[in-house]
Amino acid sequence: MFVDTVYKNRRRVLKHKTGSGLIWLQGNQEVGMNYHGNPFPYRQDSNFLYFTGLTAPGLHLLIDIDEDKEYLVGDDLTVDASIWVGDLPLLSEHAENAGIKQIIPAKELPQRLKQAVLSGHHIHTLPPYHGYQSDAIREYIGPEHPDSMELIHAVIQLRSIKEDREIREMENALTITAELHRAVMQACDAGRTEQEIYARAMEIVLKEGGRLAYNAIMTVHGQTLHINTYQNQLKEGQLLLCDMGAENQMHYASDITRTTPVNRIFTTRQKEIYQIVLDTLKESTRKIRPGVEFKEVHLSAAAIITDGLKDLGLLKGDTEEIVEKGAHALFFPHGLGHMLGLDVHDMEGLGETFVGYNSETKRSETFGTSNLRLGRTLEKHHTITIEPGIYFIPQLFRKWKEERKHEEHIAYEKLTNWMDFGGIRIEDNVLVTADGHRVLGPHIPKEIDEITSL
Amino acid sequence: MFVDTVYKNRRRVLKHKTGSGLIWLQGNQEVGMNYHGNPFPYRQDSNFLYFTGLTAPGLHLLIDIDEDKEYLVGDDLTVDASIWVGDLPLLSEHAENAGIKQIIPAKELPQRLKQAVLSGHHIHTLPPYHGYQSDAIREYIGPEHPDSMELIHAVIQLRSIKEDREIREMENALTITAELHRAVMQACDAGRTEQEIYARAMEIVLKEGGRLAYNAIMTVHGQTLHINTYQNQLKEGQLLLCDMGAENQMHYASDITRTTPVNRIFTTRQKEIYQIVLDTLKESTRKIRPGVEFKEVHLSAAAIITDGLKDLGLLKGDTEEIVEKGAHALFFPHGLGHMLGLDVHDMEGLGETFVGYNSETKRSETFGTSNLRLGRTLEKHHTITIEPGIYFIPQLFRKWKEERKHEEHIAYEKLTNWMDFGGIRIEDNVLVTADGHRVLGPHIPKEIDEITSL
Repeated sequence: MFVDTVYKNRRRVLKHKTGSGLIWLQGNQEVGMNYHGNPFPYRQDSNFLYFTGLTAPGLHLLIDIDEDKEYLVGDDLTVDASIWVGDLPLLSEHAENAGIKQIIPAKELPQRLKQAVLSGHHIHTLPPYHGYQSDAIREYIGPEHPDSMELIHAVIQLRSIKEDREIREMENALTITAELHRAVMQACDAGRTEQEIYARAMEIVLKEGGRLAYNAIMTVHGQTLHINTYQNQLKEGQLLLCDMGAENQMHYASDITRTTPVNRIFTTRQKEIYQIVLDTLKESTRKIRPGVEFKEVHLSAAAIITDGLKDLGLLKGDTEEIVEKGAHALFFPHGLGHMLGLDVHDMEGLGETFVGYNSETKRSETFGTSNLRLGRTLEKHHTITIEPGIYFIPQLFRKWKEERKHEEHIAYEKLTNWMDFGGIRIEDNVLVTADGHRVLGPHIPKEIDEITSL
Repeated sequence: MFVDTVYKNRRRVLKHKTGSGLIWLQGNQEVGMNYHGNPFPYRQDSNFLYFTGLTAPGLHLLIDIDEDKEYLVGDDLTVDASIWVGDLPLLSEHAENAGIKQIIPAKELPQRLKQAVLSGHHIHTLPPYHGYQSDAIREYIGPEHPDSMELIHAVIQLRSIKEDREIREMENALTITAELHRAVMQACDAGRTEQEIYARAMEIVLKEGGRLAYNAIMTVHGQTLHINTYQNQLKEGQLLLCDMGAENQMHYASDITRTTPVNRIFTTRQKEIYQIVLDTLKESTRKIRPGVEFKEVHLSAAAIITDGLKDLGLLKGDTEEIVEKGAHALFFPHGLGHMLGLDVHDMEGLGETFVGYNSETKRSETFGTSNLRLGRTLEKHHTITIEPGIYFIPQLFRKWKEERKHEEHIAYEKLTNWMDFGGIRIEDNVLVTADGHRVLGPHIPKEIDEITSL
């Protein structure tokens, strides 16, 4: 964790922005995988991490804004428990590490919250995502207790702007991620399985004390955007799409995609599509600076992709019209990027639209652009992903063809031949600097000649 | 999965044993790690797996015993969803694979259950371990709905006796586990970190398409029984305790422990303690056959450990008296073993004591033996772990010494010198055969000379 003053300062700003009442942040508990006693690898809640730095399960933070008091809620390990898990920090030590002055035993939490309700205090809570979190809210505060919009917006304002120390942690995560992607690209040989390459990548993540920030994509079927199985054997002429990012020991995420042709040899078609995606990534990255609306960057990425596909005869008509109608989304159905931080889709649990949009920038309702998680104007020290892609998705192709959707723009006949292509995505993580941007982390090969000479 | 008749037969027996009413088994859903959209790697519920073989999330099984009808409850993927996740099996295909004749859309489940309650049917449910499972029971059936003891006992009777095909799957899991333990023992060199050895072991598990059946223990502090951090560097003179078991692609668990001295060189003390633990493992294994009460095997293991520690002057007095009083538990505080199957502590979610004890064998209340998960009489095709250990646990030593507990039996003064020893556990997985036992899976080195010559 960082030094205690980091967390104290964050909480000071949080109190100020939230206004008044009682803030209750629930730390995560262990979650059983196939029964209660066999938990998934523990992960602390990201908001709790951000405001306390504490990674132990079963803690709560109470902040009484009006009285300006902070309480860490939890229990010390009993001697009997220490026999099994060793000597862990006391609750008072946790509190000290986080700069919290007062501690409360866990059993007093319900009473504290019930009293606060009775005495008319407003209790600010964030949207729960575990059953035990909503159970606790229902039981201690009451049914139908609404999420606090004041708290949600205060947290988003804080976490959206990364501190220098956070940027260093993200670059640390990217050091691991860069190493794994190099290894994957080098191992991308015909005859190997997705599984063995995935296993090799995981060894790299784990030996550095990291874990995955999200379930890995390692597939020769890159057109299936959310595939998490690794059962195919690589064949010549295929593309291996690897979307993997390490979370480092401080729990900061990275999110990188590279697409490598098997044996690192591109077919002509692959080279053509790859170059469009790479140009889109580079052109989009060049546009990143404070004051730029990311929705505009997304739309201009869609235009670059459209132009490229027009050159190949797969789209036809006016580029601006194609992008406005969303015809390009047959090939590029997802968003250009999202915020990145302690969560891979940073703060998504607080409400994707609250994070990525505001009163100035509204979310599109057109398929494709509607999937853009981040639309708002960029500010200094936002950290984001830029991840253009071109995919040939048989299910979407069949649906649209049947509906004759955008048939004035889409060369359906020609496309029939492309349905075994798969998909290409290239993704970097980018910091918005005072006057531009910086691609975070070590360089990871992405130019065609870099890949072929690996 | 196995062929459909396997699951049909299991359900036929389940119906018969449960008697009457409506059985409702909830398959698992995805569980968010740090927000709803970022799930832990999915794991199906083991009971749902056992009775359907289906590994997709979001399914339910309803069995109307009185009408002799079975329903698979779930939803087909929409075309829009298939764009993201590809073509997955239809609900009707899942049902066919599991030999279930009827399907019901998920939205009709609440109504079906509410109707069943209104018409006076008894609804049999198992103990929930996820928040959404208890929420569903509360919402669809009512608050305070009790777990079904009939169903719990019926499931335990079935799952306790492994079919030949299940034993083959467990041996398959052990093939992976044997490979990882050999690699760990070979990598157990001074200067390496627990983390890098853990990472190497994980590569082996993942490249075979497996996953961990439980969070790995890889530690030079084997005396801390439930440690799951991997941050130490190995030093000469230390012991590396590795308790890791793969779950194979059919979701069967293995559970193996080996303890290796750093550089595979034993000190005299380490050799002495190791040999006691190894003798205990071998002697306990020899006793395994149908009709034997496992609690007796545990107590005789405690006696062997006691005799060994008496020879070293660390315990004193009559062996039988020491074991009866539980003085040996300072060194061997856990149980000798537990059932193993689809869960690493098989069926623990149904109630550890229901699985491991019955009206003939009661659970002990003496510290140490009270931690024995399995006490009951063994039957043919039980699959169990045998995992004796000797530990020098400073927290327990300090507590007992202060209480002067069992001071007539424990050489506290002498033991002060042993508190940096750590711990040794050696664990095999064993099948109860018709007339004896068989150690499952490939041989994994455990003799002292095997380890030193690795």
